[in-house]
Amino acid sequence: MVDTAPARPTSTSTASEAPNADATGDPAAGTPVGSTDTDVRIDTTLLGELLLGRWAEDRRISRRLTLDPGLHKIEGQPIAEHRARALGQLQVLVDAGAIQRPYPTEFGGQENHGGNLAAFEELTTADPSLQIKAGVQWGLFGSAVHHLGTERNHREFLPGIIRFDVPGCFAMTETGHGSDVQSIATTATYDPAAQEFEIHTPFRGAWKDYIGNAALHGKAAVVFAKLVTAGVDHGVHAFYVPLRDADGAFLPGVGGEDDGVKGGLNGIDNGRLWFDHVRVPRTNLLNRYGDVAEDGTYSSPIASPGRRFFTMLGTLVQGRVSLDGAAVVAQKIGLQIALTYAMERRQFPTGGGDEGVLLDYGRHQRRLIPRLATVFAQSFAHEQLLQTFDDVFSGREDTPQRREDLETQAAAFKSMSTWSALDTLQECREACGGAGFLAENRLTGLRADLDVYVTFEGDNTILLQLVGKRLLTEFRAKAPRDAASTARFVAAQAASKLADASGIRRLGQAVADRGSMASSVSDLQDPRTQRALLAGRVETMVTEIGMRLASAGKDRDRAARLLNRSQHELIEAAKAHAELMQWDAFTAAIESVAPGDTRRVLVWLRDLFALGLLEQHLDWHLVHGRLTAQRARAVSAYVDRLVARLRPVVPQLIESFGYAPEHVRAPIALGEERARQEEAAAWFAAEAAAGRLPEQEKKPQP
Amino acid sequence: MVDTAPARPTSTSTASEAPNADATGDPAAGTPVGSTDTDVRIDTTLLGELLLGRWAEDRRISRRLTLDPGLHKIEGQPIAEHRARALGQLQVLVDAGAIQRPYPTEFGGQENHGGNLAAFEELTTADPSLQIKAGVQWGLFGSAVHHLGTERNHREFLPGIIRFDVPGCFAMTETGHGSDVQSIATTATYDPAAQEFEIHTPFRGAWKDYIGNAALHGKAAVVFAKLVTAGVDHGVHAFYVPLRDADGAFLPGVGGEDDGVKGGLNGIDNGRLWFDHVRVPRTNLLNRYGDVAEDGTYSSPIASPGRRFFTMLGTLVQGRVSLDGAAVVAQKIGLQIALTYAMERRQFPTGGGDEGVLLDYGRHQRRLIPRLATVFAQSFAHEQLLQTFDDVFSGREDTPQRREDLETQAAAFKSMSTWSALDTLQECREACGGAGFLAENRLTGLRADLDVYVTFEGDNTILLQLVGKRLLTEFRAKAPRDAASTARFVAAQAASKLADASGIRRLGQAVADRGSMASSVSDLQDPRTQRALLAGRVETMVTEIGMRLASAGKDRDRAARLLNRSQHELIEAAKAHAELMQWDAFTAAIESVAPGDTRRVLVWLRDLFALGLLEQHLDWHLVHGRLTAQRARAVSAYVDRLVARLRPVVPQLIESFGYAPEHVRAPIALGEERARQEEAAAWFAAEAAAGRLPEQEKKPQP
Repeated sequence: MVDTAPARPTSTSTASEAPNADATGDPAAGTPVGSTDTDVRIDTTLLGELLLGRWAEDRRISRRLTLDPGLHKIEGQPIAEHRARALGQLQVLVDAGAIQRPYPTEFGGQENHGGNLAAFEELTTADPSLQIKAGVQWGLFGSAVHHLGTERNHREFLPGIIRFDVPGCFAMTETGHGSDVQSIATTATYDPAAQEFEIHTPFRGAWKDYIGNAALHGKAAVVFAKLVTAGVDHGVHAFYVPLRDADGAFLPGVGGEDDGVKGGLNGIDNGRLWFDHVRVPRTNLLNRYGDVAEDGTYSSPIASPGRRFFTMLGTLVQGRVSLDGAAVVAQKIGLQIALTYAMERRQFPTGGGDEGVLLDYGRHQRRLIPRLATVFAQSFAHEQLLQTFDDVFSGREDTPQRREDLETQAAAFKSMSTWSALDTLQECREACGGAGFLAENRLTGLRADLDVYVTFEGDNTILLQLVGKRLLTEFRAKAPRDAASTARFVAAQAASKLADASGIRRLGQAVADRGSMASSVSDLQDPRTQRALLAGRVETMVTEIGMRLASAGKDRDRAARLLNRSQHELIEAAKAHAELMQWDAFTAAIESVAPGDTRRVLVWLRDLFALGLLEQHLDWHLVHGRLTAQRARAVSAYVDRLVARLRPVVPQLIESFGYAPEHVRAPIALGEERARQEEAAAWFAAEAAAGRLPEQEKKPQP
Repeated sequence: MVDTAPARPTSTSTASEAPNADATGDPAAGTPVGSTDTDVRIDTTLLGELLLGRWAEDRRISRRLTLDPGLHKIEGQPIAEHRARALGQLQVLVDAGAIQRPYPTEFGGQENHGGNLAAFEELTTADPSLQIKAGVQWGLFGSAVHHLGTERNHREFLPGIIRFDVPGCFAMTETGHGSDVQSIATTATYDPAAQEFEIHTPFRGAWKDYIGNAALHGKAAVVFAKLVTAGVDHGVHAFYVPLRDADGAFLPGVGGEDDGVKGGLNGIDNGRLWFDHVRVPRTNLLNRYGDVAEDGTYSSPIASPGRRFFTMLGTLVQGRVSLDGAAVVAQKIGLQIALTYAMERRQFPTGGGDEGVLLDYGRHQRRLIPRLATVFAQSFAHEQLLQTFDDVFSGREDTPQRREDLETQAAAFKSMSTWSALDTLQECREACGGAGFLAENRLTGLRADLDVYVTFEGDNTILLQLVGKRLLTEFRAKAPRDAASTARFVAAQAASKLADASGIRRLGQAVADRGSMASSVSDLQDPRTQRALLAGRVETMVTEIGMRLASAGKDRDRAARLLNRSQHELIEAAKAHAELMQWDAFTAAIESVAPGDTRRVLVWLRDLFALGLLEQHLDWHLVHGRLTAQRARAVSAYVDRLVARLRPVVPQLIESFGYAPEHVRAPIALGEERARQEEAAAWFAAEAAAGRLPEQEKKPQP
């Protein structure tokens, strides 16, 4: 992945936008306190379209739908009412035709996969519970029938799912095995005499857990279980299993529990399910990737059990893709709230006697503006992921390579953006002080609801480990094979440990050490330098870990120990790879914009994103000799300068998100604070004019 | 502060505990995966007493009280019921004699200030809403009457407050001015004819906001307002103002609003208050620091209005002190939950075929064990702060210097520990996966409740800025006075910018650059090296900022711009100072323990804390030449080694916290997961013995 991605930027294409005029030595240069003047005019319509991406129209339709107050979250609503409200909201989506997009035309769909996720992500502004409950029904339950089933299953089950006659569950996770789906213990044993599967939960740890719609509303479920026929365990397969009767009572042999209150998303009735020798017809097996004949003979188009398992799981990647998009949407809303407040709220007298607005304070700019740059990067990266997803799922480009790209991008971007969402929403909440803690201003609720995004649909730590292992696999494909050259390779690495740029050079990855070649400070603005530093970090990290693991040779115990000791580093390498891909996506987006102010501002944002990453990993670049101490100091100075430079265009950047007051809703972001400020100022002016203000107590004579 | 604190450790006192035996070159050395053997035995009783500190008995009493299920938070309880429950719980505290400790003996108190806060902090395990609602009543409302009032006020108001006949409010913050108390706009104008003050809110921004007990339960309030008499504004003073009648209706001229649902602490009825020419008797002024005679003549024992204001606010420091302690308590509970689960939960097969427990994974150790070390540091630091607080408030050592220490320690430690609590609780929640998101496992609820701790009782960012400004004041006191030597000083600094250890040496602070002198890797274990690196960082950061500000000379605009541009760095310097004080407190605590295993483990924890800080700020140490690239690499390797070394003693460390199952309550920390694992293992063993397990599908022949 690292070395196959093209180095997209060319120096000439963006050098003209670099703020060279500011590269003076005066640390006090830049925008003065309180100034909001700017002669830079962003084309917010153009930028808005760029952010909306290929499925702009689907996003617009979804945004129009979520203007409806009936879809908005009521903060603090008791759990029972919130669950009932979310259930009703799902019917609104069905009636509006909002959920049919991905399904076959035969069932009223459009086979529009990218547009479906784009529209789905925008539901986040209404209520993440609504979004995720819809995701459970159509993105997981319906999607499993769609993608793991064949026409037989589609005709039998899809109409009820799409019409929402059958609210359902996606019963994969078990209490005992969260992310380790291959180790689930529920069984589906085929009985050829009855031509039925018997679904069974052998012990408490095998209960299905954290299952949306399981506590109350689920009438049926796609249950993942180990398929056993003729005494052989063929691994995990999916079965359609009815759960409850028309009155909502569990069917015989089915039981469960309510997961109760959660840290967020309380509009969804998560719960547990168990099955005591529950029988379903043979044809309830979703049989696209594995089938059992009437006599019990197993067959599959994929011979390898391992590859079959991962192919089946691969069809479920859209959950990750959509969470990445939802995390971007939530951050835009959060930043719009906190930045609007920061541009209106005044606090503490400044030098001139007036009180400055919060966003003119250096620290406040540092807290919010780099996160704004990051969300632009994530927004462009997500658009790229969505296009990859659509390429694969439309069948237009369903190749193993493209599927692997999709898996890697989804795992990497979902991890980065969902963690970033928690960080950004928290910073926004703190930046609004006490007002940020009030539920009406939405920041605490969005954060609480998005909390679980970092561990569901694949725990971020485990997803990044998968990304890391793929990077290692690529490394091994390039590393020398025979023992003698491996030994020389390792020795060469060890010798160059303290100046490891040279080690990298031996690998022939010349791009990696451009950073140490560049000498001038302004070079940090060159996108080629930025990319060389980001890409060099990934390659070096992976090489270091790969070399270490290779040193174990055939000693498997030692190899396992070394891998465990390297787990922390491997995950950091995967993050570095994700950051590089985000940077690439940002840069590619810039290339599509004609020269002018809009492009210039996008370059500043991209530079801030890149320099922010360098600042964050400065220690690594210093230890590995990629930056000198002098250039390292320049990184932070540039971040400061870019932040001040972007300050005046913050209103235009927010406007380009394109959200209406009904999407934002926080009173502090809708003029409430400005009105209070103006009233107070008018009062003081009137009192002063009338001579009614008391004089201040004199300071005592010394 | 920096240079007056003694360099407590001596090399000989701790060198014997250093894990030198492990300082080998093999990166795979250390504790093998899955091993929980240890020959190190901590005296958990001794360590437990050390953590309980000087007011161990008060803590024990409070912990016994909070065994009562009637005091425990009910997660997801609707807001109205939660508020009513918290109100009732406060009466339980009164009846148990749990809140009287700090008050004068005349009113049933013990004048036990340190013990009061120690006991109060332990209420966090029951329900942070209960804790903070009690804090509003007795730590703010009662404490304001106690410390800002005189005997006259005490006799009139304290009995009702202490008995809880009068639930009350601390009405300081206004919507328009959160942290900037000096700019509040509510007025209290004296009318000599009536011998009354007239309390008035001139506009919406001057409404009191975020006030605990204001929405429902408050019968009276201490209202902060600008005292105006004879046409002169004497600045902010506090007044006792009745709010509601016996039926709970607002008195004439008083009004307000409910703040509604919040991100946490929903057992407290926060709200807004306004006053429309409300009259109170002259004697309702809390008149310890300022009084008005019948004829309207103002008098104060403190001549300077500025010093008077800060003295009055200084009496309210105990809120910050107690939040620091509460943040430590919450982290202990959170870590106990996540670490217990991590030692029982198994996930994914490991090399040997079995599934490892989570805490044997390298990444999982990295996620939780350094945070355990940090909470030990914070616990010892808090104990020191509590002693400073008691020294001042008991009058035993009420000196300006000691008060300043108190202010600085409280601001620094409260900021660090409350941010740390959010970080630790979030990491704990994620480390428990889906189980961590269930409210029953408490991590999300504790985090939500503690969220506002970072911005109330002084916003952390503003508190750290105060610490930073004090550091700058000290710097200026040492810097040369006359223009010529200042110029030479600045020039010398500029010349040595790239190797600034030498710049520091010129200041005569030889301790700061020990780090660059030390050459051997094992030197990082030497507490003198650790302290030199931590202290050197503070001094250098402050010097850099101080020099920059001095360069403005008499140009006030430029000085203001430079200060604003340095705000981010100044706050980082304040954090560095806080970390140094935490390290000092940890080291002082170790000195009190006799040599042996307990002390050895504490040294490892302290080293992990110190090396964790070095790792976090590695870029700074590299840029400033304090660590070479080689030693910088050694830092992370040592962190890895210490984490693995501490892994086996984690159960004993948790045990030393001394919490009962009734304090912890999370099912996943009370054996639930272990029971499930054992049931599953027994089932598989029985099935295998009976020959009932199906065989696995064979891999296809290539």
